[in-house]
Amino acid sequence: MTSYRDAGVDLEGADRHVSAITGPVTSTWNEHVVGGFGGFAAGVEIPAGYRRPVLMMSTDGVGTKLELARASGRWEGVGFDLVAMCVDDLVAVGARPLAFVDYMAVGALNPDRDTIIVSSIAAACSRVDIPLLGGETAEHPGVMESDAVDLAGAAVGVVERGEEVTGTRISAGDVVLGVASPNLRSNGFSLVRKVLAGVDLDSPFPGEASTYAEVLLRPSVLYSTAVLAAIDTGEVRGAAHITGGGLPGNLARPLPEGLRAVVDTTRWKVPDVFRVIQATGDLKPTAMYETFNMGIGYCLIVPPGSAQAIGDLVRGFGHDTYRIGHVEEGPRSVVMT
Amino acid sequence: MTSYRDAGVDLEGADRHVSAITGPVTSTWNEHVVGGFGGFAAGVEIPAGYRRPVLMMSTDGVGTKLELARASGRWEGVGFDLVAMCVDDLVAVGARPLAFVDYMAVGALNPDRDTIIVSSIAAACSRVDIPLLGGETAEHPGVMESDAVDLAGAAVGVVERGEEVTGTRISAGDVVLGVASPNLRSNGFSLVRKVLAGVDLDSPFPGEASTYAEVLLRPSVLYSTAVLAAIDTGEVRGAAHITGGGLPGNLARPLPEGLRAVVDTTRWKVPDVFRVIQATGDLKPTAMYETFNMGIGYCLIVPPGSAQAIGDLVRGFGHDTYRIGHVEEGPRSVVMT
Repeated sequence: MTSYRDAGVDLEGADRHVSAITGPVTSTWNEHVVGGFGGFAAGVEIPAGYRRPVLMMSTDGVGTKLELARASGRWEGVGFDLVAMCVDDLVAVGARPLAFVDYMAVGALNPDRDTIIVSSIAAACSRVDIPLLGGETAEHPGVMESDAVDLAGAAVGVVERGEEVTGTRISAGDVVLGVASPNLRSNGFSLVRKVLAGVDLDSPFPGEASTYAEVLLRPSVLYSTAVLAAIDTGEVRGAAHITGGGLPGNLARPLPEGLRAVVDTTRWKVPDVFRVIQATGDLKPTAMYETFNMGIGYCLIVPPGSAQAIGDLVRGFGHDTYRIGHVEEGPRSVVMT
Repeated sequence: MTSYRDAGVDLEGADRHVSAITGPVTSTWNEHVVGGFGGFAAGVEIPAGYRRPVLMMSTDGVGTKLELARASGRWEGVGFDLVAMCVDDLVAVGARPLAFVDYMAVGALNPDRDTIIVSSIAAACSRVDIPLLGGETAEHPGVMESDAVDLAGAAVGVVERGEEVTGTRISAGDVVLGVASPNLRSNGFSLVRKVLAGVDLDSPFPGEASTYAEVLLRPSVLYSTAVLAAIDTGEVRGAAHITGGGLPGNLARPLPEGLRAVVDTTRWKVPDVFRVIQATGDLKPTAMYETFNMGIGYCLIVPPGSAQAIGDLVRGFGHDTYRIGHVEEGPRSVVMT
């Protein structure tokens, strides 16, 4: 007689997992949430005032940053990475985030770890003021190593039809504002892991009081609240979330044909974490800029007359912000100088 | 000098993957889709006519059914499993599906396989008339086996505030209509794989012209179109998507306190696939009903006077439908007789 537990799926453990995460998840729910925890789906009322609401979606995963979390047992920040990857994509098109769902795949449930992870996702959702409406935790016994974790998520938001941030208003002479990322976000970690394969993650990071694990796992900055405030001024003509592909790969995305962005890489100080990775791996600067954010996690393209005000506004949310470049005529591209 | 390719991430392959899937993905897009392929997020206009639209979300994965797909190289149906798991949850609360996003994690990209998978997801989205707005394909070199695949997704839908299907209108005497599932959906596969571990997947399935792999991988039926049509009559008081946990675990979910569902398991013929799994694994009937759908993939709870009409309506969409039980007073539960 075979039971489902023999097959590696821990039904009682799953029940305990659901009980453990109910508190963190529902702590993100406000009076606009519809449906109960454990239903087939939950929802959130779309705020009033939209004439032609467009529902926007984005999805992403944390990627192999999770392997560093596994190696060092540090899971507290991964939810911020997950929510940032999805929500900061949404606001790049001008959508106001409304809700989030997560997907976690594990080799085997681990109650302490799994509660920390879901609590981290919930904390990040609360930080950007959206409910964590639901999630799925899948056990993949025999497919994933028992202590392996994969995390993905999806965010949904709303924008008034015609008010999307599409980049079509970008003009030659516009300013590129760069918003600071003091650390890695959630991309480039396959390269990080290769470069630092021989390094003890618990040893001190050069020039820091923290260990390699602590520095590398610092959670992604959440830009959505500041970016939405900037967009609400009506002055943001284009926005780019800088993740895989770096500035060259992402700043090009909002540009219309016939315009290029010229970025002056001397305008900000590249954080030490990137310099250490580059030196350890003997990596070319171009490879670094095409893989990592190099200290700029978000870009806003604004007319020159608004650059000071928008920069001040974003700084008011606690993000260092620099004029890092401008837009000019030329083949659609990003030129790093 | 390390390149990102050395780290196991195939950037050129990723570009080719994106090119290969652009056609299938955008084939699902209609005139209501906002944004372009490759933007930070895409969207869909919410249909007019809602006074207080509620945005509902659901998320799920295909689970270890993918391991059977991997073992037999058959990926054509997995997108239907993925979309069914998410969308058929959404309609259980009365929400009209509006859009879908997918997340695929792989050890290494495999162009032929990956195009088949995304095309399968797109085909399933088209079947239920929603756009596949975006997706993420993550390479996890060294973490997943090179030919391993994990698939998850998220669906979003809309329902008028106050018109959610919550189960609160369910009354003693209501009829439970069961909608047929001729095969496994996308749950219970860890047990299936254990029970059939010694079986050659390419050998004929008992009593069938098809192989084990073909029978076990038959894609999940998509119920959402028929279920929404039933809900639109206003006669559906509760709905349940029968996945992990089977009828006992899922039919209880819409029931209010003080009511139980009594299911007469003689009212429909359990498909042979379940009988073969049960016999091969020497599994108890209770374990079977608590793990698999046993031939009933969806339940609708309706007043007795509407049962015939709703059953006829659902059958009109090609789904066999049976009166499988009723609701009566008693502790909130599902009684299998």
